[in-house]
Amino acid sequence: MSKLVTKITDRDLDFPKWYTDVVKEADLVSYSNVKGSMIIRPYGYAIWENIVSILDKEFKRTGHQNVQMPMFIPESLLNVEKEHVKGFAPEVAWVTHGGENKLEERMCVRPTSETLFCEHFKDIIKSYRDLPILYNQWCTIVRWEKTTRPFLRSREILWQEGHTMHRTQKEAEEETLKMLKIYEDFQRNILAIPVIVGRKTEKEKFSGAEKTYTLEAMMYDGVALQNGTSHYFGTHFAKAFQISYLDEENKLLTPYQTSWGVSTRMLGSIIMTHGDNHGLVLPPNIAPIKIIIIPIKNTEEVQKITKELKEELNSYTVSIDDRDKSPGFKFADAEVKGIPIRIEIGPRDLEKNVVTLVRRDTLEKIETNIENVLEKVTELLKEIQQNMYDKALKRRDSMIYQAKTKDEFQKIAKEKSGFILIDWCGNTECEEQIKEETGLKSRCIKEDVNIGTCAYCNKPAKHKIYFGRQY
Amino acid sequence: MSKLVTKITDRDLDFPKWYTDVVKEADLVSYSNVKGSMIIRPYGYAIWENIVSILDKEFKRTGHQNVQMPMFIPESLLNVEKEHVKGFAPEVAWVTHGGENKLEERMCVRPTSETLFCEHFKDIIKSYRDLPILYNQWCTIVRWEKTTRPFLRSREILWQEGHTMHRTQKEAEEETLKMLKIYEDFQRNILAIPVIVGRKTEKEKFSGAEKTYTLEAMMYDGVALQNGTSHYFGTHFAKAFQISYLDEENKLLTPYQTSWGVSTRMLGSIIMTHGDNHGLVLPPNIAPIKIIIIPIKNTEEVQKITKELKEELNSYTVSIDDRDKSPGFKFADAEVKGIPIRIEIGPRDLEKNVVTLVRRDTLEKIETNIENVLEKVTELLKEIQQNMYDKALKRRDSMIYQAKTKDEFQKIAKEKSGFILIDWCGNTECEEQIKEETGLKSRCIKEDVNIGTCAYCNKPAKHKIYFGRQY
Repeated sequence: MSKLVTKITDRDLDFPKWYTDVVKEADLVSYSNVKGSMIIRPYGYAIWENIVSILDKEFKRTGHQNVQMPMFIPESLLNVEKEHVKGFAPEVAWVTHGGENKLEERMCVRPTSETLFCEHFKDIIKSYRDLPILYNQWCTIVRWEKTTRPFLRSREILWQEGHTMHRTQKEAEEETLKMLKIYEDFQRNILAIPVIVGRKTEKEKFSGAEKTYTLEAMMYDGVALQNGTSHYFGTHFAKAFQISYLDEENKLLTPYQTSWGVSTRMLGSIIMTHGDNHGLVLPPNIAPIKIIIIPIKNTEEVQKITKELKEELNSYTVSIDDRDKSPGFKFADAEVKGIPIRIEIGPRDLEKNVVTLVRRDTLEKIETNIENVLEKVTELLKEIQQNMYDKALKRRDSMIYQAKTKDEFQKIAKEKSGFILIDWCGNTECEEQIKEETGLKSRCIKEDVNIGTCAYCNKPAKHKIYFGRQY
Repeated sequence: MSKLVTKITDRDLDFPKWYTDVVKEADLVSYSNVKGSMIIRPYGYAIWENIVSILDKEFKRTGHQNVQMPMFIPESLLNVEKEHVKGFAPEVAWVTHGGENKLEERMCVRPTSETLFCEHFKDIIKSYRDLPILYNQWCTIVRWEKTTRPFLRSREILWQEGHTMHRTQKEAEEETLKMLKIYEDFQRNILAIPVIVGRKTEKEKFSGAEKTYTLEAMMYDGVALQNGTSHYFGTHFAKAFQISYLDEENKLLTPYQTSWGVSTRMLGSIIMTHGDNHGLVLPPNIAPIKIIIIPIKNTEEVQKITKELKEELNSYTVSIDDRDKSPGFKFADAEVKGIPIRIEIGPRDLEKNVVTLVRRDTLEKIETNIENVLEKVTELLKEIQQNMYDKALKRRDSMIYQAKTKDEFQKIAKEKSGFILIDWCGNTECEEQIKEETGLKSRCIKEDVNIGTCAYCNKPAKHKIYFGRQY
């Protein structure tokens, strides 16, 4: 086993340490001397760029426009919506001085931009003709977390935040669900991550929202990662900010609002859903390099075929590892970086007119006739993408448990990792008790029910709901 | 004249007011309640997105990789390079609190990221094999300006900053000039803006740089706007940050460094180079909408041809203005937004099998056979792009004056707008005296000379140099 690989802790022995090792050895992130902030290195940033590029096209296809709001929020503006400020004020970074001068009013670096968008909406919405407004913003937000982990809990987060305004409740609710669906499809088809999609409880919803929908992924260790949220605000913010418009009959009405976002957290989700003891495993549809060609010996024939193959495979992103290192080092490096397919070309292979393809998801070696490489690679990339999703789905489903009683719930919570699905009463007190007694928090409501009783407190059941630990 | 157009001040009467009017009426920017920060609206942001997309491809083509550094710089880190901190400390925003807690060390929001990149370079550069490092970052920076104007002087600036490290001085100097050339070509070919490219004086160079190269554009009013800079650092920062690498013979050496950047200021430059009394005029190569089709009456025939034309012109970005507004309003709106070509389609035109094309740069109307629209539009877009550059170049050149004596210099400075080209001694005291006595600052050194005397102070001349007022 090469030096590179032995640097990675066994994921079944110490998952958090495994995660940190992969993030570092795959050159995704560097720790900076700025406490709580990370440096996203070229390979990590290239994954984020692919995410941005794919999602941005989807947002534009569905009629959204990008804008850029200020990064600072004056304290008085953050204070306008009462629930919202309660949720965010404890974790913002405060700017108090500009150069040598103390500011008259301190400002926080945006933890999210509802208040800024509302101020702007108040300014530009006059008539029903101005609606709907479908805006999105790609930016960095700041939340002053005490303990941080790359991608998962960071003081600075790269994300997008959609903010929209509509004439009717129906239209706004449809927008909330439409964007949720775009996120779900993206995560399933591009990131190969199965997500449970549902509504957050009253306790867990976004500060200021009427309804929050979430995409809950389950990591390899059974712990949940929230991969994105979509909120329906009703008129809460609009009323607090006095946003209104005139309809066809000159009647003054209040518009309905949504917001929705995903972030660099998804990179954490990719790592912890697919990674293995050799490092990162990237779904082909998001991998910055889909294929890497590794010449085993630098004979003239090998060099020639290497170049020809790269040319032939050019419709994919292909890279050649011609560094002055041993093949073993290069194999391990391609593995740790999660490149979906590596092609090994050696002089002895060429005598037989073959090359060896190695798929990253299974590490299976496939000897392939040189003439068939393009065809085989095309087929393999699709297969790897599908296999990664299927494998993640199977593992996740095998770690979802059902509990009928408090005892069962507590026994599973103690002995198993994963989610627990129960009938539940919907009361915040019950939810808090579950958290206190088991450490599990509600993930999301799967559906509403009106028969049966709460598995935990025996009151009448209102929902089927998932509970689980979370990142 | 329509209501829209009359909202724009005459640019020859009050240029600053004209600028503010255009920025607002073209929906580029909205003022926010966050003092000194602006909201970039969808139309303005779409221009920036085009800039980013084109430049990012150029950076990648030349081997650069994108990364993302923290947005905060601890005070002690900003202090490492002495010249640098002197230049930036007076204008940074200081974060002093995270949530309820006072920070042990205050941090500024990055005004530029040399110090952060240096910390990272120190961490990742070990051997000659690690060089060159060619990084770029797209991000927002903050400079706490007292008086602000949209795009020109804003507390928040969207920009890119390239940061590279090299083994030799020669390679680093070549990189500095290579990126300068990419900026120059971009501004000439895409933005249709002629720029004077040269070196900054000792007084005007970047805090911490050995050499600063600049791209100086002249606005319609004769005032300079710096459209980008490229710096050669030598080993100043590398030594201050103790960055070194081992060469082939295990000798410890210091690498050579560059940085280079352009920002949303270029949007100000586009507006003030090309705009007229009807509003914005956008070069086709950067316009988010290249062609707008305006149906004059909504007859079935007009609707049919409108749709067919849009389909035919689809390789350009085409939009149809089918809002419930008068044609006059729509014409003015297309003009204020600077859309390169508008196509008017009316029932009477269609009887003759023609449509009317109106080019934005000259407002010339061109009746065109329907069958020839695609061909004509293709030709026109090229012509408009070229004409806009030629016009801007001609105007700029007509506003460059030469002075042989102090009297001549002062007379031109008093009576004319534009640049003054002189033989100059190269002394900072002389430069400061010129600033004090005429209000003009050095723009950039055109070339070095070793004959003649300084036009201003009569000492031996060292350079031919441009002076001018600046934004």
